[in-house]
Amino acid sequence: MTLTERPEPSTDAVHPLDPLFHPRSTAIVGVSSRPQAGQTSFLGAFLEQGYHERHDLYPVNPKITEAGGLKAYPSVLDCPDPVDHVISQVPADAVLSLADQCIQKGVRSVHLFTAGFSETGDPERTALEFEVRDRLRAAGIRMLGPNCMGLYVPAEGISFSKGFPREPGNVFVLSQSGANTGEIVRGLSRRGVRFSKAVSFGNGADLDCEDFFDYAAADPETEVVTAYIEGVKNGRAVFEALKRCAAVKPTIILKGGRSAAGARAATSHTGSLAGSLDVFEALCRQTGAIRAHNMDELHDLVIAATTSLRRARGRGVGLVSAGGGFVVLAADAISDEGLDTPNLPEETQERLRAYVPVAGTIIRNPVDAVGSLIRRGRSEQMKEFLSIIGQAEPIDLVFMTVPWDSSAAAGMGDNADEDEPEPGSLSAAQQVARDAATDYAELQESGRVPFVAIQLDRPRRGAFADTSRAFLDEAYNRGVAVYPTVARAARAVGRILEWRARREGLPDIL
Amino acid sequence: MTLTERPEPSTDAVHPLDPLFHPRSTAIVGVSSRPQAGQTSFLGAFLEQGYHERHDLYPVNPKITEAGGLKAYPSVLDCPDPVDHVISQVPADAVLSLADQCIQKGVRSVHLFTAGFSETGDPERTALEFEVRDRLRAAGIRMLGPNCMGLYVPAEGISFSKGFPREPGNVFVLSQSGANTGEIVRGLSRRGVRFSKAVSFGNGADLDCEDFFDYAAADPETEVVTAYIEGVKNGRAVFEALKRCAAVKPTIILKGGRSAAGARAATSHTGSLAGSLDVFEALCRQTGAIRAHNMDELHDLVIAATTSLRRARGRGVGLVSAGGGFVVLAADAISDEGLDTPNLPEETQERLRAYVPVAGTIIRNPVDAVGSLIRRGRSEQMKEFLSIIGQAEPIDLVFMTVPWDSSAAAGMGDNADEDEPEPGSLSAAQQVARDAATDYAELQESGRVPFVAIQLDRPRRGAFADTSRAFLDEAYNRGVAVYPTVARAARAVGRILEWRARREGLPDIL
Repeated sequence: MTLTERPEPSTDAVHPLDPLFHPRSTAIVGVSSRPQAGQTSFLGAFLEQGYHERHDLYPVNPKITEAGGLKAYPSVLDCPDPVDHVISQVPADAVLSLADQCIQKGVRSVHLFTAGFSETGDPERTALEFEVRDRLRAAGIRMLGPNCMGLYVPAEGISFSKGFPREPGNVFVLSQSGANTGEIVRGLSRRGVRFSKAVSFGNGADLDCEDFFDYAAADPETEVVTAYIEGVKNGRAVFEALKRCAAVKPTIILKGGRSAAGARAATSHTGSLAGSLDVFEALCRQTGAIRAHNMDELHDLVIAATTSLRRARGRGVGLVSAGGGFVVLAADAISDEGLDTPNLPEETQERLRAYVPVAGTIIRNPVDAVGSLIRRGRSEQMKEFLSIIGQAEPIDLVFMTVPWDSSAAAGMGDNADEDEPEPGSLSAAQQVARDAATDYAELQESGRVPFVAIQLDRPRRGAFADTSRAFLDEAYNRGVAVYPTVARAARAVGRILEWRARREGLPDIL
Repeated sequence: MTLTERPEPSTDAVHPLDPLFHPRSTAIVGVSSRPQAGQTSFLGAFLEQGYHERHDLYPVNPKITEAGGLKAYPSVLDCPDPVDHVISQVPADAVLSLADQCIQKGVRSVHLFTAGFSETGDPERTALEFEVRDRLRAAGIRMLGPNCMGLYVPAEGISFSKGFPREPGNVFVLSQSGANTGEIVRGLSRRGVRFSKAVSFGNGADLDCEDFFDYAAADPETEVVTAYIEGVKNGRAVFEALKRCAAVKPTIILKGGRSAAGARAATSHTGSLAGSLDVFEALCRQTGAIRAHNMDELHDLVIAATTSLRRARGRGVGLVSAGGGFVVLAADAISDEGLDTPNLPEETQERLRAYVPVAGTIIRNPVDAVGSLIRRGRSEQMKEFLSIIGQAEPIDLVFMTVPWDSSAAAGMGDNADEDEPEPGSLSAAQQVARDAATDYAELQESGRVPFVAIQLDRPRRGAFADTSRAFLDEAYNRGVAVYPTVARAARAVGRILEWRARREGLPDIL
């Protein structure tokens, strides 16, 4: 790697790809000449993230002198030194000459957003992809793409999309698809997760899966790794890199193109020859990674891996909710995932009886505490009630639906409208929600079992949405997993237990 | 049935249960004495629905003289004649004397919201349930419950919960659980569905499943029937009634208590002995009903049964969306449900090529038209593009993600924030959404295949939420099915095809 030969604010621990993720300056070539250029695409995303407040940012387009409030330059060669990183938005037939300029300028990495290469299946376009790569490689420049969205590095202010969180976190995303990088970052950030880095690498002509697994394994800012992969070119290298990564960090992988039609689409998408699912499953098993079956499951497993749920040790769920029919279906859903809602011991039931009336409650487990406790929001009684369940011998973890959903779940006269706080009492309602989340965190910190919150995924508006948000953020930040349905929480637990069993012999990183 | 012997605005077609669903007057016994009584529980729901504007409504509580703006009465006996229907909110030990008053008053039906009977497992409480039932039966009075939420009849202004739609529709719900009646009515009304009637019958001591299947089969206001059932007492009667119902109307049933824990909970919930799943599956197969595996699937099958999706005849899906990785996973999800996204014929691809560029698009099927058509909202070009796909020989139905989700799906620079219309242009954005829905409806009316819209279930706020709502309402009302994910749409299609195959020999009601 010639990258490390360049002068660098160096430490011994620097990884060859660190310069890619931490460019001191970036040129965006082919920014729009429309007046609103600063609002769209890469430039808009960089400005929103505040890259230009920390680093030098150069819009490049010969037809304009300014974009998004920044001085624009006619070409890469006209930008002030140094230009570390170049993003190409120019058409495919202009990429070779851009590459030559980058070489002349001495840039360190080039990201080709530009599409229309090997993924078209056209031999000439494929040859062009290789030619660009080889020319850049020969000059010691690493290439990202082509046909990809590139980088999201919140700590540096780098993003390819507006609306991604500005605060950094501990999850690393690598993906052959820009759309799915967006699905992962947007979907998980709504659930409280934050990211160290994300990289969409498209056709992966130069930098590919194995490079990013290798980087993620070493990256001190990364604790959990997740990937979307359609197919790999160099199976051995991927195996070795994934093995290094999954040995030290929970690594969750979704494979696209499992079906014949999906595999055909993958070929058109990133030129990938989608490998067989069996091979992929074996790859995960042998490396200690976990395979997600679909995008929802990827999200749910990242939640599990970044919260107390990763410590789940057994199949006994204590379920606390409201609504008789709701808990019946919840118990069925838990059973579908190979877990159980074991009968609570008589002694435990006796203790719970002190908190709820006989009529309209079920306390054997599942526990239906409708009309008594759960719908009143956070209370000391609720906390004691949950604590008693968490202490019961057959219980390995506790699921509870959060109070502001339960009346809707119960369908019992009261409803969401009535539970919605008045605008004036908004912060009080948010405080109740935050306190409930704190209670759950304290219960699992002081006890032996994880507590999992079920916050049903319903349309919420105004103050009600803010209350739910306040709960979710506080809960997740305190290590409490939040899931939108009982079925998905149960599935995540089942997968974590399966993963743990499979990893026997590997270090316990959960 | 003595009910029909009473004087009635009679037609020959009147069903013995018609008086229950169409009471000319209702007394709610045990309304709260709190000043806000008119806001909560049954009284609040009746007032919101406007029952009192069409019929006589009598709050009953000896401690007050007024509730919710209506005159309150000390007892049922003090209410003006006639009192057709009585709702009991009094405690279980006061129910026998209330029953005697109802007999004396000459009421026609009694709904016991009151819980604390056979579902507790206590022999004395079980005996009380039977005694109340027998005493009422002997007087020709039908009983609903105990331990249930009772009726929702929007055409009459009857409801047990605020927030249910006031407009009536064509779907009948019968449920052993009030919570799940709420899940069905709230969940499906968010997706455009409206209801003829819903009934939560709890312990079903008198009126039970079979009575409501029998009623739904005959009810001219009902076109589709759905049920949540934990266990049945009289298997033969249920079989016969369900057979009559499923022969003439699509009938979708969710069974709760499939698992050991769920069955235990069902016993505590409604005193049901949950039957085995095998028996239940056989019941559905032999009667021509369809079994939903969980609540989401129940919702999805009702959508299918009330839209053009019920006409699906084959497994070939044309998928149109945005984002390469998104369509790869969508193709996998379609395959998981036993459907296919067949290659489009060369000739079809040739015609599609006129609408999209080479770079960054996939048109073999799945079709990724990102950046070209789908993200620009509704257009004549989009309609032509979809029409060409719908005409292709291997295509049996078309799935398309709606434009206002697709940029988020694609994760390609632009995002939901930018797509959100300015408040000032709200009605214009809604109009575009409505026009797109109209286009889809016209495509399926003029062609041979159903068009299914995928409107991704993302948090939406303000104008963006209103635009999505405008689309959904217009689409559903024009017979276009809308699903929140490709996987769920595919699953619904798979189940409909399986159902159709199973019903061979029965009348084609789909």
